[in-house]
Amino acid sequence: MSAPNSRQLVAGMVGGGPGADIGKTHRYAMRLDGHYDLRAGSFGRDRSNSRQVAVELGVAADRNYADVAEMAAAEAAREDGVDVVVIATPNDSHFQLAKAFLDKGISVVCEKPLTQDSATAAELVRVADQNHAILAVPHCYSAYAMVRQAARMVRKGELGAIRFVDVEHASGWAATPLEELGHKQAGWRTNPDIAGFPSVVGDLGTHAFHLLRYITGLEAERLSGRLQTFVPNRRVFDNATVELELTGNVPARLWASMAATGHNHGLRIRVYGEKGSLEWLHEDPHHLKVQDLAGATTILTHGLSTLHDDASRLTRVGLGHPEGFLEAFANFYSDLAESLRARRDSTPLPERDLSFPTGIDGLVGVQFVEAVAASHNDDSAWKVPAFALEKAVA
Amino acid sequence: MSAPNSRQLVAGMVGGGPGADIGKTHRYAMRLDGHYDLRAGSFGRDRSNSRQVAVELGVAADRNYADVAEMAAAEAAREDGVDVVVIATPNDSHFQLAKAFLDKGISVVCEKPLTQDSATAAELVRVADQNHAILAVPHCYSAYAMVRQAARMVRKGELGAIRFVDVEHASGWAATPLEELGHKQAGWRTNPDIAGFPSVVGDLGTHAFHLLRYITGLEAERLSGRLQTFVPNRRVFDNATVELELTGNVPARLWASMAATGHNHGLRIRVYGEKGSLEWLHEDPHHLKVQDLAGATTILTHGLSTLHDDASRLTRVGLGHPEGFLEAFANFYSDLAESLRARRDSTPLPERDLSFPTGIDGLVGVQFVEAVAASHNDDSAWKVPAFALEKAVA
Amino acid sequence: MSAPNSRQLVAGMVGGGPGADIGKTHRYAMRLDGHYDLRAGSFGRDRSNSRQVAVELGVAADRNYADVAEMAAAEAAREDGVDVVVIATPNDSHFQLAKAFLDKGISVVCEKPLTQDSATAAELVRVADQNHAILAVPHCYSAYAMVRQAARMVRKGELGAIRFVDVEHASGWAATPLEELGHKQAGWRTNPDIAGFPSVVGDLGTHAFHLLRYITGLEAERLSGRLQTFVPNRRVFDNATVELELTGNVPARLWASMAATGHNHGLRIRVYGEKGSLEWLHEDPHHLKVQDLAGATTILTHGLSTLHDDASRLTRVGLGHPEGFLEAFANFYSDLAESLRARRDSTPLPERDLSFPTGIDGLVGVQFVEAVAASHNDDSAWKVPAFALEKAVA
Amino acid sequence: MSAPNSRQLVAGMVGGGPGADIGKTHRYAMRLDGHYDLRAGSFGRDRSNSRQVAVELGVAADRNYADVAEMAAAEAAREDGVDVVVIATPNDSHFQLAKAFLDKGISVVCEKPLTQDSATAAELVRVADQNHAILAVPHCYSAYAMVRQAARMVRKGELGAIRFVDVEHASGWAATPLEELGHKQAGWRTNPDIAGFPSVVGDLGTHAFHLLRYITGLEAERLSGRLQTFVPNRRVFDNATVELELTGNVPARLWASMAATGHNHGLRIRVYGEKGSLEWLHEDPHHLKVQDLAGATTILTHGLSTLHDDASRLTRVGLGHPEGFLEAFANFYSDLAESLRARRDSTPLPERDLSFPTGIDGLVGVQFVEAVAASHNDDSAWKVPAFALEKAVA
Repeated sequence: MSAPNSRQLVAGMVGGGPGADIGKTHRYAMRLDGHYDLRAGSFGRDRSNSRQVAVELGVAADRNYADVAEMAAAEAAREDGVDVVVIATPNDSHFQLAKAFLDKGISVVCEKPLTQDSATAAELVRVADQNHAILAVPHCYSAYAMVRQAARMVRKGELGAIRFVDVEHASGWAATPLEELGHKQAGWRTNPDIAGFPSVVGDLGTHAFHLLRYITGLEAERLSGRLQTFVPNRRVFDNATVELELTGNVPARLWASMAATGHNHGLRIRVYGEKGSLEWLHEDPHHLKVQDLAGATTILTHGLSTLHDDASRLTRVGLGHPEGFLEAFANFYSDLAESLRARRDSTPLPERDLSFPTGIDGLVGVQFVEAVAASHNDDSAWKVPAFALEKAVA
Repeated sequence: MSAPNSRQLVAGMVGGGPGADIGKTHRYAMRLDGHYDLRAGSFGRDRSNSRQVAVELGVAADRNYADVAEMAAAEAAREDGVDVVVIATPNDSHFQLAKAFLDKGISVVCEKPLTQDSATAAELVRVADQNHAILAVPHCYSAYAMVRQAARMVRKGELGAIRFVDVEHASGWAATPLEELGHKQAGWRTNPDIAGFPSVVGDLGTHAFHLLRYITGLEAERLSGRLQTFVPNRRVFDNATVELELTGNVPARLWASMAATGHNHGLRIRVYGEKGSLEWLHEDPHHLKVQDLAGATTILTHGLSTLHDDASRLTRVGLGHPEGFLEAFANFYSDLAESLRARRDSTPLPERDLSFPTGIDGLVGVQFVEAVAASHNDDSAWKVPAFALEKAVA
Repeated sequence: MSAPNSRQLVAGMVGGGPGADIGKTHRYAMRLDGHYDLRAGSFGRDRSNSRQVAVELGVAADRNYADVAEMAAAEAAREDGVDVVVIATPNDSHFQLAKAFLDKGISVVCEKPLTQDSATAAELVRVADQNHAILAVPHCYSAYAMVRQAARMVRKGELGAIRFVDVEHASGWAATPLEELGHKQAGWRTNPDIAGFPSVVGDLGTHAFHLLRYITGLEAERLSGRLQTFVPNRRVFDNATVELELTGNVPARLWASMAATGHNHGLRIRVYGEKGSLEWLHEDPHHLKVQDLAGATTILTHGLSTLHDDASRLTRVGLGHPEGFLEAFANFYSDLAESLRARRDSTPLPERDLSFPTGIDGLVGVQFVEAVAASHNDDSAWKVPAFALEKAVA
Repeated sequence: MSAPNSRQLVAGMVGGGPGADIGKTHRYAMRLDGHYDLRAGSFGRDRSNSRQVAVELGVAADRNYADVAEMAAAEAAREDGVDVVVIATPNDSHFQLAKAFLDKGISVVCEKPLTQDSATAAELVRVADQNHAILAVPHCYSAYAMVRQAARMVRKGELGAIRFVDVEHASGWAATPLEELGHKQAGWRTNPDIAGFPSVVGDLGTHAFHLLRYITGLEAERLSGRLQTFVPNRRVFDNATVELELTGNVPARLWASMAATGHNHGLRIRVYGEKGSLEWLHEDPHHLKVQDLAGATTILTHGLSTLHDDASRLTRVGLGHPEGFLEAFANFYSDLAESLRARRDSTPLPERDLSFPTGIDGLVGVQFVEAVAASHNDDSAWKVPAFALEKAVA
């Protein structure tokens, strides 16, 4: 573990070998604010590739592990062992890898979907709790300043009671059969054994669903889902539409797609309240559009002096200087760093109701995927997601 | 009837008295291209108001009728009687009024929703056919040049096979209880006796639905609907979401609202095909956004030399000179004028597969409203709209 | 002249034959609100073309004139003669044609630039005055609702003292040598005998300059201009940049181009004051962007209930229904109709400080063109336009 | 100096103490790609503040210098001394500070404007050359992927011959008298002794001017400038407009402002060629708008597979994931790192015609400021900037 009261945390990574974009993205995000020092890792299954990455990253040879069990044991045993490990591997390995570290009391950042089913996701949450480790899930879109602004506006009642929500993460990245051309990421994301049949729901739908929950503070009480496969011969579903009923009978809709032809990224949310509405688009992330009852539109910008502190504190540069995806991802890591240091130093946790997503959010996401699949299999009949069921029982 | 081979047609109007915006809008649209001469009318139930409007419009006193039956009889009897009558009244009177003229062989432009139920809508279609009259329904958004461009692009296969459609007509005009403040239009549109319980579906949903059908050429084979009332104490539904399956199992979604807080107008459609996608927004009607498989975006503008003839023929002024709602409405009337003259002069009808909507479209719209309501009443169970049922039987 | 206290005015047109877009545009605009009845005209120099247009427009044969002098005399002599004549011909004929009617006391709408030099422009103003005729110049962009909103906001001090203005009318319509391909309009607009050497300044620069004057209420006190010819072998200047000093030493810039490659229309204005700024783009005419000192942006829309009456009175349809170029042009004609009727009926003129541009505006425009040309010829030295000189003298 | 053939470079910083945003920005940018290790610095004149920053950044106490001469000497003497020093202080100290390091052969990144006059700027260039040190100037907007795309498109002739350029860096950050309220940055930027009278030209105008030169590859051959002070009592000019003639008589315009009320950032460039035009806005930096002769608009996005390699190589995350100001700044540092390593290791310099700006660009910027001031003082007479004069002589 890093030294008490020091600023930098010691981090490890599993995955993120050559060509694995998501691992690189985590590393950019960890570097930006200087909270983390990456000192250990197992960068992919190919031993020589892993070594090459370790060298490039300045990870010492004795902390470049061939095996995750070994890494967990060795790092737990070191005085200067890792505070946190990032799991940036395909979905099917998340459970086993995350559990290996959590079991040793090492905090974990695990990519979404957290695991392949809600039983294992729940177990990760339980193991993390038992071992006083932090389990964080990088739904990093919630770390954009303007998303935080939106969430605060809703909580302060600036839109009045919420009436309707429309969210979509509809990308066009796999609108053609990339998997037939050897595209690595398309390969595993369209392999039902790794990504599950409702692949797009786990991959993009969970981001959209988390964004909806994060901004509105509402939960899904029941839902009706439909899954489609747009690209011929594809082995998983690549498109999904979901109708939802949120807390208090608020209707909502969600669209997830990896085959929305022409779209670049496609994450967007619109929230309608009795006094106003707002819209946020990931492709223009430093603006937030607000409309009032009369129909006038106000565009708020990242860096405006009039924003709520939740947004202002996430601004690094001046008004009009766009910050993008990596900065949002770095915000996730900054919020996490606060908690990791508090845990390490036994100081009080920061009191923020708008902070990073945890294992619970990951679990709710997996339950969401399961409910959508169940509804689809029952011709879109309404289903109650497990988290809502449990609440109802409790 | 107007003189054979003459250019101007003789028109009448029912409704459109003082304060009735929709009647005024029809008159602007009829005037713009000079195809119509308004010479007869019954401008609302208040006799003195109607007279005042007649004087303003230059309608002769003897052709300003107190009674629609009288108007139909008198105009049918005159040599220079009206070629066409515009019905611009609240929904509950459409059937009776339209029928009065169609029975006499006078063509009719009737506002949507065509009637309050599909039986009467079907009867209007039948009566029009029997009397060789034209029954047109002003889903005038389909008359925008860039909508025609979109429709032609789809028909020519420029997007490839259609995979998904998302359409919405989500306005914020009645996000507050306007009806409690004496707002005339809100009054009748929230009165279930006049507008029906699924009011917003008939009023705005039918526009969205028609736009979807017009651009894609696809029909709804089944649908699942949900209706909500956002504004407290409102007596009708003011929000609706519908999931659809179109011809060939193409999934689609539709959102209609009169309470989408902050929205100005809110008609928008996105169509995704295997080779590209397009988006059209009514609030920026002279542009059409097209995205290709690589993710590049092209913005086509009304007036570009490279547009299809269906769009080019609807351009009055040069590239970059915006045309708006009234021009689109006038396009509807220009296309209709071609048909009215052909009918009058016994010349061949113009061969256009992209022209004005007719009574059939109005009937399909009413059946759509009924199917949505039926689904809603059955907890959003899938329903087959009557037009699809009939096809299946046939 | 039309009958006293009647609504419709009797109009004539010179020019606007087959293929003459601007004439057609005037006719659309005159029809939209029903204030004008076009009953006389000389539609181009080709007699048979003119007759054909007359028939199409329902102009009686005896009021389809071969000769303008004859037309002026005959119409002035008729009891039901024209109230106003529209001159929609190339620039070199404006003076003679307008004068023919003004001499007879017939009001005139004359396209810009009003004449080919300021002496003749000044004479038209004088003749109109002497004969109590109205001389209007269709800088119709000033008749957009949102331009009127902008002008009122400035006058009410909502932006504080004006500090800077940037205006451009930079079109790409003639970025290639269209004139070499027989393009009719390009032919005369690149003919220095008809359009003058500073062609683009007269054609588009005067629109930009008028818009600047209309919105800000400021006049040019001196200017420095540069002219360029972008398209090889073109015989006139097709691009111009002008630096201006407005009343009170307010700096401004103007860019006029007919060769701004890729631009569709390109009229845009930005006005900066001590308390806020605004931007209006002709390609999105129903919105007005306002920015405050903090940097927040508000988008006002045509039809919003919060607009000034100058804007609201120009709205025909509801919020969110775009109105375009023809509606703006029709607004020009509606404002003019008020004045024409007041003159006819000897009732008080409407008191509006925001109404249609007159001969004075046309004259100021011609003086602007002359000052820009003089500056260009003197290597961009500062020049004082004649209108400012006269003021200084007076 | 860093170890031969190692990846990370050793960096130092002068300035960047508490509250100095620009220093922090440099540090974010240096960290993002992991090319630099900040190990030495003098973080502002206040010794205790400097120490605090050093501790936060993990800079050893013996490399946290009180004095720059000492720092230069000590670092030059160390085997592991800095490869490069970043000067992030107000303008008036640039010359002395940069010279101290360059004299010792230590490479320098110096903020713009490079110095307060062109003689000292030229001297820095000379000293850097003599000592084989790299002098880089962070006009970092040129490091955006889409700016590189634009520059490559121009060089490949995709727009044809360039006809016109319009560039502006018009910010609203100082539209009020911030300097009277103790705003630190406004304090020195409105102090003529530090920022010079033409303050805004040096601060923002040089960015705009560099962007113009970078994208078009053209130089200014003469210019005419005007300076204004919009905010009452301000001691420097806060607004400037410049007309330019570029290589080959291509006309251009530039607007620089720190008082463009309501603007957030305001850097924008438009380039018009004979075959097409392009527009780039810093507030939407991951898009590039391209318009063709017909008037169709194409929006290119950062990450598209069809971009030129100059743009693609600067993309860290996938299509649709926005990258912002810090990423662009990091691109500057990545390009610089290539050169610094090549110099250290005596390997060939990377052959890139589109790379980071150097001292020459800084010098040309200072000469630009001087020419604008000279023109302003001579009532906007045309002036030939020194770099053009020298070329003409040579």
